[in-house]
Amino acid sequence: QQQYRITLLPGDGIGPEIMAVAVDVLKLVGQQLNLHFEFQTALVGGAAIDATGEPLPAATLETCRQSDAVLLAAIGGWKWDSLPSHQRPERGLLGLRSGLGLFANLRPAKILPQLIDASTLKREVVEGVDIMVVRELTGGIYFGQPKGIFATETGEKRGVNTMAYTESEIDRIGRVAFETARKRGGKLCSVDKANVLEVSQLWRDRIIQLASEYQDIELTHLYVDNAAMQLVRAPKQFDTIVTGNLFGDILSDAAAMLTGSIGMLPSASLGANGPGVFEPVHGSAPDIAGQDKANPIAQVLSVAMMLRYALDRPEAADRIERAVLQVLDNGYRTGDIMSNGMTLVGCRAMGDALLQAL
Amino acid sequence: QQQYRITLLPGDGIGPEIMAVAVDVLKLVGQQLNLHFEFQTALVGGAAIDATGEPLPAATLETCRQSDAVLLAAIGGWKWDSLPSHQRPERGLLGLRSGLGLFANLRPAKILPQLIDASTLKREVVEGVDIMVVRELTGGIYFGQPKGIFATETGEKRGVNTMAYTESEIDRIGRVAFETARKRGGKLCSVDKANVLEVSQLWRDRIIQLASEYQDIELTHLYVDNAAMQLVRAPKQFDTIVTGNLFGDILSDAAAMLTGSIGMLPSASLGANGPGVFEPVHGSAPDIAGQDKANPIAQVLSVAMMLRYALDRPEAADRIERAVLQVLDNGYRTGDIMSNGMTLVGCRAMGDALLQAL
Ligand SMILES: CC(C)[C@H](C(=O)O)[C@@H](O)C(=O)O
Ligand SMILES: CC(C)[C@H](C(=O)O)[C@@H](O)C(=O)O
Repeated sequence: QQQYRITLLPGDGIGPEIMAVAVDVLKLVGQQLNLHFEFQTALVGGAAIDATGEPLPAATLETCRQSDAVLLAAIGGWKWDSLPSHQRPERGLLGLRSGLGLFANLRPAKILPQLIDASTLKREVVEGVDIMVVRELTGGIYFGQPKGIFATETGEKRGVNTMAYTESEIDRIGRVAFETARKRGGKLCSVDKANVLEVSQLWRDRIIQLASEYQDIELTHLYVDNAAMQLVRAPKQFDTIVTGNLFGDILSDAAAMLTGSIGMLPSASLGANGPGVFEPVHGSAPDIAGQDKANPIAQVLSVAMMLRYALDRPEAADRIERAVLQVLDNGYRTGDIMSNGMTLVGCRAMGDALLQAL
Repeated sequence: QQQYRITLLPGDGIGPEIMAVAVDVLKLVGQQLNLHFEFQTALVGGAAIDATGEPLPAATLETCRQSDAVLLAAIGGWKWDSLPSHQRPERGLLGLRSGLGLFANLRPAKILPQLIDASTLKREVVEGVDIMVVRELTGGIYFGQPKGIFATETGEKRGVNTMAYTESEIDRIGRVAFETARKRGGKLCSVDKANVLEVSQLWRDRIIQLASEYQDIELTHLYVDNAAMQLVRAPKQFDTIVTGNLFGDILSDAAAMLTGSIGMLPSASLGANGPGVFEPVHGSAPDIAGQDKANPIAQVLSVAMMLRYALDRPEAADRIERAVLQVLDNGYRTGDIMSNGMTLVGCRAMGDALLQAL
């Protein structure tokens, strides 16, 4: 019997509710396939600030490091919005990324036929959309030095951040992207702003260099402004997208919203070795926290991504993904994806339906 | 009789064709309202590279400086894509912006009822959308120092750009934005990434400070990733958006594409004093250049913006905008906005229809 150590980071807002559903699902699949999971729960984000004064206590990072994979729910909320920035919940997330060396963030944006009407885009434009955004996650302007707010000679303040990438940083995310494209549709679009930014010129040069090792992959390049436009104009043209930390933040959210159902989208953050972090794309939704209204599916699909990418159990991942489709086919919908003629359920009831389908 | 000096920069690709139409329209309106225009044509972009080796010859900048307003068509094309970056057509555009101190870029994205079906978004989502993006244009990561590709200690290359804003840079674009919102729907949304970037924290602090002088304006803040998402999810929530150079580049293009008819959208770039530059949002479209297929309307509406913002002739601007609506009502369409039952026309014929409508 295979045994896996999983760290659970329920975090804030709807986090604990959706995490509970995801854990139930994981346990059941484990029973079915004879996989054993040992769970450790740790504090992060606002919950950690309340308990310890810090968004990412050292103990949490240590627990994560000693596990095979980390399941994160959601971080942040109004309650902590007025804290100084280095003490805010988001810092916990950034600390986790750099602390675990999670340089590759995979964010799928896939339209499910059952939910196509949830999109604000016309059916014919989004039907069949299946995009994977590969976002660099530990470099670029999120971490570049110098940064800060400095006094200028004239006495006024100047805010500064640095967008920087080294060749090796570009290469390692580039490789993940080419490999990802290879497992998907064989097309990779690299997004940069090479007509203005030197850091993007280096990015583009390296990606072109790498391409010689991946001759089976069709590589294209877009400027980030054009990419944002093309996502709205004709999203089906994309298969895999690779880009830096900031552009990836923006474009993966835009791509996610094309589906109209961000409560359905999981993500994976992976490092060179050590555990990956698996979490929904959506946030902590403090407005509906504790009301049993949250959609747990993105969290459940994050479990599937964890099984596929971290634990190498694709058969378990498939099982969960099939159960999600089954539940949707049966007409169950949480409020965020509700439509005419469907059955409105809460977070727990959606969880029960998923267990049933499994 | 009022006399205005206008510099024309037809640039590359479809630039000369659409500029010819715009100039005809301007002349006719001038005759009708007794305004006299003196035109100077100058070189910029690829056309300037071919003639002089430089994307922005000093003579061009000088001519612009001595005029009341600059009308620019489009810059760039495949032909110059392999030149080293400091010699590329885009540098002409960046040089014009910094050379003329054009710190405020106004980019409207308005859905015209006649063209609503051109949008990839559902009718009910985009009906009535009328957004003005106020983008900072001479600061931020486009111009911040240090920038370049440097060798690191280990011998590998590192690409670097700097995103920086001083308080006074934020204040002056902030004021333009508040004033713009005041003339529009009274709502301003400031977009930043203050949860991660120090430069954005300063941005947000200053915008909040400024708000005390504009108490009639309803101010909100969004992170740039969320803003990209909200533009797709519910674009009608926006009235005026203010943001930095890079975020404005991305969001204004996304907003433009919501309309589905980027060939219709003008823009204005304004400085503290001296002439502004008025130009279409779309590019030089080298694939259809010289074929009489281009849509001249964005260029013609740029003339209207010039009359409104630079020359303070709103009655002339109104006249042109009415003529555009008239021509659309009459069913004339260029290829990019063609739909069933309409009359397909080329660039010149669209120009004739506009003159007719005037
Ligand atoms: C919360 C924030 C720091 C984070 C980011 O910008 O990376 C979020 O937007 C995301 O995309 O995961
Ligand atoms: C051509 C390029 C330098 C320019 C920019 O990035 O500003 C363009 O995308 C724009 O938005 O006007």
